[in-house]
Amino acid sequence: MRITFLGTAAARPTVGRNVSSLILQREGDVMMFDCGEGTQRQMMRFGTGFTFSEIFFTHLHADHFLGVIGLLRTLGLQAREEPVDLWTPRGTMDTLRQAVELGVERVPFEVRITELAPGDTLRRGVYDVVPYKTSHRGGPSLGYAVVEHPRLGRFNADKARELGIPEGPLWGKLHHGEAVEVDGRVYRPEDIVGAERPGRRVVYTGDTRPCAGTREHARGADLLIHEATFAQDEADRAGQTGHSTAREAAEIAVSAGALRLAITHFSPRYADDPRTLEREARAVFPDVVAANDGLVIEVPYRES
Amino acid sequence: MRITFLGTAAARPTVGRNVSSLILQREGDVMMFDCGEGTQRQMMRFGTGFTFSEIFFTHLHADHFLGVIGLLRTLGLQAREEPVDLWTPRGTMDTLRQAVELGVERVPFEVRITELAPGDTLRRGVYDVVPYKTSHRGGPSLGYAVVEHPRLGRFNADKARELGIPEGPLWGKLHHGEAVEVDGRVYRPEDIVGAERPGRRVVYTGDTRPCAGTREHARGADLLIHEATFAQDEADRAGQTGHSTAREAAEIAVSAGALRLAITHFSPRYADDPRTLEREARAVFPDVVAANDGLVIEVPYRES
Repeated sequence: MRITFLGTAAARPTVGRNVSSLILQREGDVMMFDCGEGTQRQMMRFGTGFTFSEIFFTHLHADHFLGVIGLLRTLGLQAREEPVDLWTPRGTMDTLRQAVELGVERVPFEVRITELAPGDTLRRGVYDVVPYKTSHRGGPSLGYAVVEHPRLGRFNADKARELGIPEGPLWGKLHHGEAVEVDGRVYRPEDIVGAERPGRRVVYTGDTRPCAGTREHARGADLLIHEATFAQDEADRAGQTGHSTAREAAEIAVSAGALRLAITHFSPRYADDPRTLEREARAVFPDVVAANDGLVIEVPYRES
Repeated sequence: MRITFLGTAAARPTVGRNVSSLILQREGDVMMFDCGEGTQRQMMRFGTGFTFSEIFFTHLHADHFLGVIGLLRTLGLQAREEPVDLWTPRGTMDTLRQAVELGVERVPFEVRITELAPGDTLRRGVYDVVPYKTSHRGGPSLGYAVVEHPRLGRFNADKARELGIPEGPLWGKLHHGEAVEVDGRVYRPEDIVGAERPGRRVVYTGDTRPCAGTREHARGADLLIHEATFAQDEADRAGQTGHSTAREAAEIAVSAGALRLAITHFSPRYADDPRTLEREARAVFPDVVAANDGLVIEVPYRES
């Protein structure tokens, strides 16, 4: 999985940072999360292409969704035909529909808007997208966990050959958990196939206070992308505005047992130099990066 | 007068050009014309400040107005209190209002939306803003002429002293066209004051075919800012889409007798190198510049 940060500023853009958006690519699937004003231009700047098919909105504050209006128009100019799915928290469909239908332009493809409640898991074959409740203000809000299903155990080809099991369909059956018979002898999967291997888990919080939902869904996450609008010396303001401090984000990463943490959504006062925030988080959780626009994070499989 | 181009791309942004917007400053007055998506970030990039008080929309295609939504939100975050005036072509107020009211954020200042028909001149003391009918497609469209009133003639102070007219209120009277009496002698303004001097005239077309309105309002203009979406080899496409070619823009500048021409609103195919368009226009009208984002044009008084 590959994450590209398209916007890492809170509330309003700065010269160096656009408002919120990121893209998650997983094999052929390209998902966008949030789409602040100017996102289409960030996509051009950072070469993500326009092949995505869906946008997941964490909430409908202006800095997280206004970009969808122009982005859809541009897809229309590109003569796109494939539908686009917009997923948005329950209770926000009308606003999103007004945005999509604003003005006179019509797009030549279908725009499907679907509301999601916490727990309305989208099953995608080998992975799920799990929306969960976050704790922001001014309307419903969701975080999202992208959770791969466990992968098959490692197939020991050398051993299979040694045992005289012919390469071909029988190998596939064993790998998928079925016993096979060769020359009157039965081989069980556990003779040849290692233990199931964990899939990857990436969590994106959107705007939120530190909350139980993130802690739960980020348990053992390969990457937690947590907002960190403020430093700890503005903890009161974070509380009042429904945001988190860098330390709070790091504390969530620790308590969830996440492998890595990326902080994003920085108040303009940290925009030029988010090292204050990164240092603050690192004091609590070592493997942290403060995102910049254009930052790409690769999330590999854990080898075990 | 000082014009700052904030976006010079047609229809959709490119890496190097944002969609349409420009700012015109005249002494303390700051007027924005059009406000495509991402304009607020261009303002930050090019240091225009946020002190403007009004936006004139040429038409409500997405690439000319979507930026107003986020821009007003950002003004709200800056605790602005002064009202903002939005001027928009007759028949488009509802769309603009929907845009302004989209989402949950409310701004702490008044947003006044007023529809303008061609000829609904706004009188501003020493200058007028004159909306005129352009020829685009997909809804009503306006161009705007900013027209300074003629300035008083030059006051010949040396001559006034020579004639023994004491410096003070009498000078003011003469300068403003009133005869004065000194020691029984009458002096007429034409003895001391030169001919009225022309004010400046700047015209911005927005999106349009070459049209009579531009020709008329740009008569003798100090600066004509004309769209030039295509080169002449795409003249058919320009006609079909309601746009102009660079040559057509230059022909309008010639027939209007404008002093200078700035072309803007370039199709993405010319975005990286608009010299083709500039050359094409220059073959017809010598004093032309192809605008770039961030270009500043100063419009001086004509000395005469």
